[in-house]
Formats: sequence, structure tokens, C-alpha cells
Amino acid sequence: MDHILFELFVIFAVAKVVGEVFERLRQPPVIGELLVGIALGPHAVGIIGDSEVHHVLQELGAVVLLFMVGLDTRLPEVRAVGTRALVVGSAGIVLPFLLGAGYIGATGHSGEESAFIGAAMVATSVGITARVLADLGVVGEVESRIILGAAVVDDVLGLLVLAVVSGLSGGDLSPVGIAVLAVEAIGFVVVLGLLGVHAVNAAASTIEAARIQRGPLAVALAVCLGLAALADTVGLAAIIGAFLAGMAFAEVRPRWDLEDQVEPVYQLLVPFFFVITGAQVDLGALVEPDTLGLVAAVTGLAVVGKFLGCGAAALGMPRRSAAIIGVGMVPRGEVGIIVASVGLAEGVIGPDLYGVVVAMSILTTLGAPPVLKVLFSGRGGEPRPRRGRRTSDVEGTGG
Amino acid sequence: MDHILFELFVIFAVAKVVGEVFERLRQPPVIGELLVGIALGPHAVGIIGDSEVHHVLQELGAVVLLFMVGLDTRLPEVRAVGTRALVVGSAGIVLPFLLGAGYIGATGHSGEESAFIGAAMVATSVGITARVLADLGVVGEVESRIILGAAVVDDVLGLLVLAVVSGLSGGDLSPVGIAVLAVEAIGFVVVLGLLGVHAVNAAASTIEAARIQRGPLAVALAVCLGLAALADTVGLAAIIGAFLAGMAFAEVRPRWDLEDQVEPVYQLLVPFFFVITGAQVDLGALVEPDTLGLVAAVTGLAVVGKFLGCGAAALGMPRRSAAIIGVGMVPRGEVGIIVASVGLAEGVIGPDLYGVVVAMSILTTLGAPPVLKVLFSGRGGEPRPRRGRRTSDVEGTGG
Repeated sequence: MDHILFELFVIFAVAKVVGEVFERLRQPPVIGELLVGIALGPHAVGIIGDSEVHHVLQELGAVVLLFMVGLDTRLPEVRAVGTRALVVGSAGIVLPFLLGAGYIGATGHSGEESAFIGAAMVATSVGITARVLADLGVVGEVESRIILGAAVVDDVLGLLVLAVVSGLSGGDLSPVGIAVLAVEAIGFVVVLGLLGVHAVNAAASTIEAARIQRGPLAVALAVCLGLAALADTVGLAAIIGAFLAGMAFAEVRPRWDLEDQVEPVYQLLVPFFFVITGAQVDLGALVEPDTLGLVAAVTGLAVVGKFLGCGAAALGMPRRSAAIIGVGMVPRGEVGIIVASVGLAEGVIGPDLYGVVVAMSILTTLGAPPVLKVLFSGRGGEPRPRRGRRTSDVEGTGG
Repeated sequence: MDHILFELFVIFAVAKVVGEVFERLRQPPVIGELLVGIALGPHAVGIIGDSEVHHVLQELGAVVLLFMVGLDTRLPEVRAVGTRALVVGSAGIVLPFLLGAGYIGATGHSGEESAFIGAAMVATSVGITARVLADLGVVGEVESRIILGAAVVDDVLGLLVLAVVSGLSGGDLSPVGIAVLAVEAIGFVVVLGLLGVHAVNAAASTIEAARIQRGPLAVALAVCLGLAALADTVGLAAIIGAFLAGMAFAEVRPRWDLEDQVEPVYQLLVPFFFVITGAQVDLGALVEPDTLGLVAAVTGLAVVGKFLGCGAAALGMPRRSAAIIGVGMVPRGEVGIIVASVGLAEGVIGPDLYGVVVAMSILTTLGAPPVLKVLFSGRGGEPRPRRGRRTSDVEGTGG
């Protein structure tokens, strides 16, 4: 027990210090946190271990992150970009899958292997991009809303691709099973996305009238955990549920002071997501000479596939906006790694291809944030209001 | 993964609902949360499991709880009651140990068994009492400060008693080892207790001058986790470290708005401590006819030992204050259970005596809060300020 407390202390304290250093260097703090994880993880220094406790804290960090991003995302604004997000998300599925599966097939691997690598290249890690958008203070920008909406679409479609690929390669999913999964996943997102806000609005005055001490925060956190668990149950990422929960509370957010109240929980838990995600990275595996070429090719195709696919779907918008959307969809983060683990566990891909997918996920994750920062330069710039407030609180009262 | 997220949701949501019901019935919500754990735990309905994840969340909840209590505890006020707390804590060690060990010895058990049961009866669970005091809004009262101080003394002395008993019964602790442990534990508490506030005050203006965004909260949480881990390392309970960390920040608390900022973390994590503690209870084991008499006797002696020992040490104070202090020291909570687990693991006590200690711990934990509430009636009554504020926020803006 003492060791895990010590680990939590190290993860939190080092993440905060390094994150602050990156902030001063005008780099996204999330990169600093990922690097802390890589350096202290089991594949390097070994201070941070790898157990169920780590996975749960990682998941909780991601859930709180996406809940907070959801709080900043109002349904009418999502609706306004809904069609565009659908097109961008779909394009970001098709092109990476074709490029990835085609290349792996062309280099002499089996059809099953090709399909799995294609499926892994479909994934989008909205967590990484969302954090960068939040750090830059641009969650409300139209490109950000398209990216977040498209990432949700990606997760739903990516789930279905994985189910089909898994089914083809001897998993136990029948066509009926895949159809049920599709209905569940799409139904979950559509029903909660459209009705969540109305349900919360309808219940809000009852909750307020009940005069429950700290009731609003408790209700919001309970719904967040509940929808995250429900999303997981229907096969979606838990963070999709947390994001939809946040969106449902976006309208009552100012009245309930929710953003200020969730902020300390965010400060405590979110670093665990990024540091522990980083800790799962084995840098040594990246530089094996045998796979270096394959890593470079797959990573290149992963970037090109999302950038061209999503960027093309955003044509008609200003060129820089299309570029932002293309780059914002690039990070595969933990999602690509999860897909690869499924393939490894089912025996469809071997450790070498697994390592390639992990490397591709890491490289796309580390590469996108600095580019996004440059593309957004001159815009946003104002970090989220509560951060400014906290800073000025201290400035006003200290010194 | 989905199962643990679902568990976390159930624990949090049910704890909040039942806690609110208990609040309306004018009962301590903590009892409701403990009962939720008993009902849903692995020994009953089985929705809540028992894994390392549960233990870590339980520990984090306790750490945040004691940090918050520490924030409400100013060093000069502790100093003012220091001697009294030392006397109360010491008396609360001696009498329960003699009563417990004497009775078990008299009922035909071995000397080692007697010593272990005595050691288990020494423990005080400051977590339970601290939560009740916080719920009643009386953390600042003189009796509360004596209880908290005496509980820290109890933990230090209890650790030494356990070390001695463990050493006598074939553990590997030499007299030198015990002396080192004593110096570490006493040194930890004295040094941090006396110097923590000065260290934080000295660093405060540097931290403020650095204008780190959300720096004060990050520093406070990092110190909290760090001292909890350090306390664990020297063999004390982690919560003692968290409590001392809170005390160290008590002076900068208003300037840094710390109580308001830690409150949401408290709301999220503290229920996990009580629900998971409750989940470890096996009600079935309590009512075995063979051990029922022993449970009743040991529980009775545990109550009498602390109440008379601590109450007598508080003589000279008004009678009701002495009674509050006596009752406040009664709950054994998770500490008694931990001591019993050590004895079971070392093979010194069997499952029957282990069950008796667990039962005694539970009964003293469930019994004390309602009595404390009655004894404090007419005083305090104002819950912690931030709670009132949250409620009035909602009342003011809702409806």
C-alpha cells in the first residue's frame, strides 16, 4: 500500500512540475505529462508500475477530462456542426483503414493482419486532442466542435469496424451480434446526445427545490460515472459517456457553478491519465532496426490518412480550419493501443505488429499537439476562464 | 474495466442518496454510507468487490478526509490542548489494552493471543470521528481538537504497541528495531506538526510570486499525497500524514481558498472510504452463537476502556466535554481490523478471534456517532461554512 501511495505522489508532483515547465516554454503541458510517464514507467526508470489500480486511475482521469470538455460543449453548437462532424468522422475512418490495410497487405502479411492494422489506424483519441484544445482555450471554436463531434462519430464507427474485423478473424460475433452492437452504440450516442440536455433541464428545478446540500455536484458526478459505465457496457469508450454527460449539464453549468466545482477534481485526476498512458510506452521497442521502417511507413500513412481524409471532408472551410481539423484527428493515443491489444490477445497479430501499432499511436499522439498549437496561434489564447480566475485570485491576494 | 466503473458509479450514487436520507432523518450520513457498504459488499449482495483498486480508493478517501480536517485545525489551537491530548491519548492506550488482554487471558487463551487482542483494542479510528465532527460542524470546538490530537497520539503509541506485541510473538523486530520505529514515528509527528506551518508560510509567498496557474491547489495536493506516503513509510497510518499536511496549510487556507477547492475532491472521494470500509464487514460472522458472548464482552470492554480511560483523563473539564472526548475515542474503525489482519497473517490469532475483533471494530464504529450527535446537540449545528454556501448558492439561483 505504501508503494502505491508513493507512486501516486510521484506521478502527481512530477506531472505538475514538468507541466509547468512546458507551460513556461510555451509547449502543451500534456506533452510534458506524457514524457514523465515514458521516463518513469515500467519500460524505463520503473518508479511507476502497471496494475489494475493504474488502469482505473487512468480511466478516471480520462472520464473527468471528457466530462469537463463536455461541460464546455453546448448541444446547439454541436448540432450546428453536426453534418460536418459526421462527414469528417466518416472520412477519417475510411481513408486510414484503406491505407493501413492496403499497405500491410502489400508487404506480405495476411488478410486478417491487414484488417486489424487497418482497424487500429481508424481509432481517434479524443482525450489527447481535447486536452490540447482545453489548454489552448479554444474548446468553443468551430473547428474544436467539429473535431469533438467527429471523434465521437469515429469512436462509434471504429467500434463497429473492430467488431467486424474481430468477427471475420474468428471472434464469436455473428452478423446479428454486430447489428445489435451497432444499434446499441448509435442509439446510445443519439439518444443521450439529443435528450440529455432536456432531461437535465427538466430535473434541474426538482434538484434545486430539494435543497440537497452539494446536490448539484453530486448529481453531475453520479451521472458522469453512470454514463461512462453505461458506454463501456455497450462497447463504446467510457469517455464517450462522460463527454455526453458533460454536454447534458452544459446548460445548467453556469447556474450550478459546475465548472469551478469540477476543476479541482480535474486538477487531481487528469494528470494520472496522461502520465499512466505515457508509462505504457516502451521507447526501446520503437527503435528496433527490424521494425523501424514499418513504424515509419505505418505512422506516415496514419497521419496522411487522417489529415487528408478529415481535412478533405472539411473543404469549403478556410484552409487553416481544414488543417486544424485534419491535424486534430491524427492522435491515436490509448485507443490505437487498445485495438492492438485485442488483436494480440486474439492471436491475430504478433508482437512485432503490436509494437508497430503502439509506436504509431505514440508518435501520432506526441506529434499533433505542437502542430495544433501553431495552427491555433493568434486565436483563443485565453485559457479557460476559471484558470484565469484562480491565477488572478492568487495575484490579487498574494505578494 | 466496465465492471469497476459500474461499481464506482453504484458506490458513489447510492452513498449520496442514502447519506441524504440519513441527513433528513437527522442521523450522521457516515452511518448511512457504512450501511450501504455492508449491504452491497462481498459478504452480502456482492455488487461491491474487494480488490487492490478498492483498497486504494478507500485509502485516498481517508487521506482527503483527514487533509480536510487538518485544514480546519490550526496549530496554536492544537498546542493549547496539547498536554491534555497527550494525557487522553495515553490513557486511551493503557486501559483498553489491560482490559482486553486481561479478559482474553482470563478466558483461557494464550498470552500471545491476549497481547494481540489488547493491541487491537488500543486502536482509534480518527477517520470515523473526524467525519462525524465535520458533519456536525464542530471541528473547531475544544473537545474536537483534543480528540483529534489524542487520536494522533493513539496512532503513534498504538503503532509501538503493535510493534512490541508483534516482536514478542515471533515477529522479526529487535528492541533496536522498535526503538528506531519509535523515533521515526514520534519524530515524524513532532517535526511536521511543529514545523509544517512555518515551512508552508515561508514557501507561500514564493509560490504566489511564481504565479503558477492553479499552483496553490497543486502544491497542497502534492504535499498531502507526499506526507501520506511518508507516514506510511515510517509505519504510521497514511491519514496521519494527510492530517499533518492539512494542518500545515491551515494558515494559508483562507488566502488560497483551499477549503472550497478541496471540497469537490472530498465530495467525490470520501464516500469511497466509508462505503468500502463497510463492504469489508461480514454481518453473518457477527451472529455466530459460539462467538456472540465473546463479541459482546470484548465490545463492552472496548467501549468501557476508551470511555473511562479517555474520559477520566479529561476530568476537570465540564462533565459533558469529558463524555464527548470519551465517546469520540471509542470507534476502532478500519484500524482495529488492520491490527487483527496482522495477527491473523502472523498466525497468532485464529479466524474466531479475528472475527471477534472485526465485530468489535464495527460495533464501536456504528455506535459512537449517534451518541456524539446527542452529546453535541445544541452546539455547533452550523455545518462547515462551504456547505452552507453551496446550498444557498443553489437556493439563491434556482427555483
